Amino acid sequence: MTAETDARTPADEHSVGLVETQFAELFSPPNPLQLRGGTTLGPITVAYQTYGELSPEKDNAIYVCHALTGDMHAAGRMEKRRKSGWWDGFIGPGKTLDTNRYFVICANVLGGCQGTTGPASLNPESGRPYGIEFPFVTVEDIVNVQAELVRHLGIDQLLAVIGGSLGGMQVLQWAADHPEQLNAAIVLASAARLSAQGIAFNAVGRRAIYADPNFKDGQYYEQEEGPRFGLALARMVAHITYLSEDSIELKFGRRLQDSETLSHDLHSETEFQIESYLHYQGKRFVERFDANSYLYLTKAMDYFELAPNPGDLAQTLSKTDARFLVVSYDTDWLFTTAQSKEIVRALLSKQKHVTFSELSSPYGHDSFLIELDQLRELVEPFLHETLKATRG
Amino acid sequence: MTAETDARTPADEHSVGLVETQFAELFSPPNPLQLRGGTTLGPITVAYQTYGELSPEKDNAIYVCHALTGDMHAAGRMEKRRKSGWWDGFIGPGKTLDTNRYFVICANVLGGCQGTTGPASLNPESGRPYGIEFPFVTVEDIVNVQAELVRHLGIDQLLAVIGGSLGGMQVLQWAADHPEQLNAAIVLASAARLSAQGIAFNAVGRRAIYADPNFKDGQYYEQEEGPRFGLALARMVAHITYLSEDSIELKFGRRLQDSETLSHDLHSETEFQIESYLHYQGKRFVERFDANSYLYLTKAMDYFELAPNPGDLAQTLSKTDARFLVVSYDTDWLFTTAQSKEIVRALLSKQKHVTFSELSSPYGHDSFLIELDQLRELVEPFLHETLKATRG
Repeated sequence: MTAETDARTPADEHSVGLVETQFAELFSPPNPLQLRGGTTLGPITVAYQTYGELSPEKDNAIYVCHALTGDMHAAGRMEKRRKSGWWDGFIGPGKTLDTNRYFVICANVLGGCQGTTGPASLNPESGRPYGIEFPFVTVEDIVNVQAELVRHLGIDQLLAVIGGSLGGMQVLQWAADHPEQLNAAIVLASAARLSAQGIAFNAVGRRAIYADPNFKDGQYYEQEEGPRFGLALARMVAHITYLSEDSIELKFGRRLQDSETLSHDLHSETEFQIESYLHYQGKRFVERFDANSYLYLTKAMDYFELAPNPGDLAQTLSKTDARFLVVSYDTDWLFTTAQSKEIVRALLSKQKHVTFSELSSPYGHDSFLIELDQLRELVEPFLHETLKATRG
Repeated sequence: MTAETDARTPADEHSVGLVETQFAELFSPPNPLQLRGGTTLGPITVAYQTYGELSPEKDNAIYVCHALTGDMHAAGRMEKRRKSGWWDGFIGPGKTLDTNRYFVICANVLGGCQGTTGPASLNPESGRPYGIEFPFVTVEDIVNVQAELVRHLGIDQLLAVIGGSLGGMQVLQWAADHPEQLNAAIVLASAARLSAQGIAFNAVGRRAIYADPNFKDGQYYEQEEGPRFGLALARMVAHITYLSEDSIELKFGRRLQDSETLSHDLHSETEFQIESYLHYQGKRFVERFDANSYLYLTKAMDYFELAPNPGDLAQTLSKTDARFLVVSYDTDWLFTTAQSKEIVRALLSKQKHVTFSELSSPYGHDSFLIELDQLRELVEPFLHETLKATRG
């Protein structure tokens, strides 16, 4: 099943506003969802994609968890989209997550805006989009939905769960809450909790959205324009944190965008290349992402804390017998190597099988989306060994 | 002359809007200012404070350059202000810049909003505040005004010029443009050019101001409210960059502000202590700072580049025979030790007298405002030696 051949169900009837028309598989869990925050939510829809074929033994499934602004379109082409999936260099025939060998699943997260139920979806009670009436969601809720989807696909045990950043948090949550449903956990550029600095940057992004006069308490879907300025600003500041200082310096330095000399003009907002780049990133982002989803998912990220202290962390992770691969990047200052090592130490203290590597890359936090060759060298043999161990 | 005894001239007639009433000394240069951007500006007013007494030989004057959001109120009390000056622990009788011994001068920068001519000042041509009709100012312009003030005070040669961050940029500009007017240059937590990452954060801050509907192309002074949300947001993001990751973690971690458990409430913007702190910083800032000044001064910071390449930097700094003291902080990621070392290397390549120290502090970029004891250990003997060398 690939996006090209099986994309058949338009999801636009399930969501409104800024959400673009989706062509993905859809799944509706039979029961309402019991949320960590205390409320229930349902019925919900989950938009997902699969790549490759499930083996008759159903032992070759890999669940891919996307990061903050990703979605189920992880690889290949998808109808109505001009670009390939966000991890297209990593998933496909002959690639690291080799679709000739593995069955790869990726779903848009709960609270997202690409087909899975989120704040832009219609609230059956009011007949209009939830907006910020949407219930609070946590990484636990997000992963519970994923586990339901996996069961729905007839899979008892995943070969592996993999993800970077917020995706890596989901992988850790899988290991904590569904310890018997996975044989391997691959955690990239992530942490057992978001740092205070990470919370700070997210808080600034949310403030930008809240302060946008078009935000209108989250009920902007029927307006001509939503909180575009606020969302773009949130993306700009987040984008800086995804890059390393060195990569910004290398890529842009102090080079100017369109002229050879400084304009001495206050009105130019895109005079330096780095400014122009950030403005472009912000602008592009608002075309594809819903501001309310940004609020909800950054909050889920802030709230994520696998265990309040290192001792508990070991206990939390001890429930699974999954093999772990933990990867950090030396220039990632949003999710540091020290944070990855905390996970590794907790696992080792419980005699878990864990492989750890700090990879060297100039690309900062974004490295797991860019440096696919070095990642392949780690992930490919790790998956082979896991599959071999699973098949005995 | 101290703020308490000599503060006599209200500057509020020279500025409007958000600018609070000042009681500072005022100086108006006799001739219009020739700006680096090509235009002229004048007449202008410079609000300044002095501390201590100028020696009969006029050889004990130290010029203090303030950073982005500081002003002339560097020490002591000032009428109508509840707090002491921003460097009060550093300047005063018996302190590092000992006012029993030295004559200390500090002026609000050109383009600022605390009494020196800036965008909130009345444009004599239009009869209303300049707003963004104010001409573009650079660090060169800022320092030229300071040099005029120093001459006006009857001082041919300063014992030292000292400043951190944007203040350190001014010190470097003093050395480059007025090489014979200073005997020592003390550059704290600064650089010969702003990094691309620094430009990026400034660009985000400016975007927040521009996008605020109350910005009104900079002509908000007659409104009830200026671009408060935008300016507060700019301050929040900048504030994160002033702190080290460790200090945020140490000071706030993931602790909650008012409750013991997570609320699972999207509407709470100040649930974590770090969120509450940033919101408070933003809110307080808009009470004392003008958004247009923030635009102009961050642009001046972005534009600052003492020399386009390291070879030229040595040439630029070779014009002065001043003794240099360069200080960086190990947790400062906005102005890194590597950037300080670039200055030091340039000076050494020209056989200049230079002392360099990387100080260890958890406080990141803000360290030069906080860690005054360790700074004293370096600055005090450096000034003594300079004075001794000057007096022969």
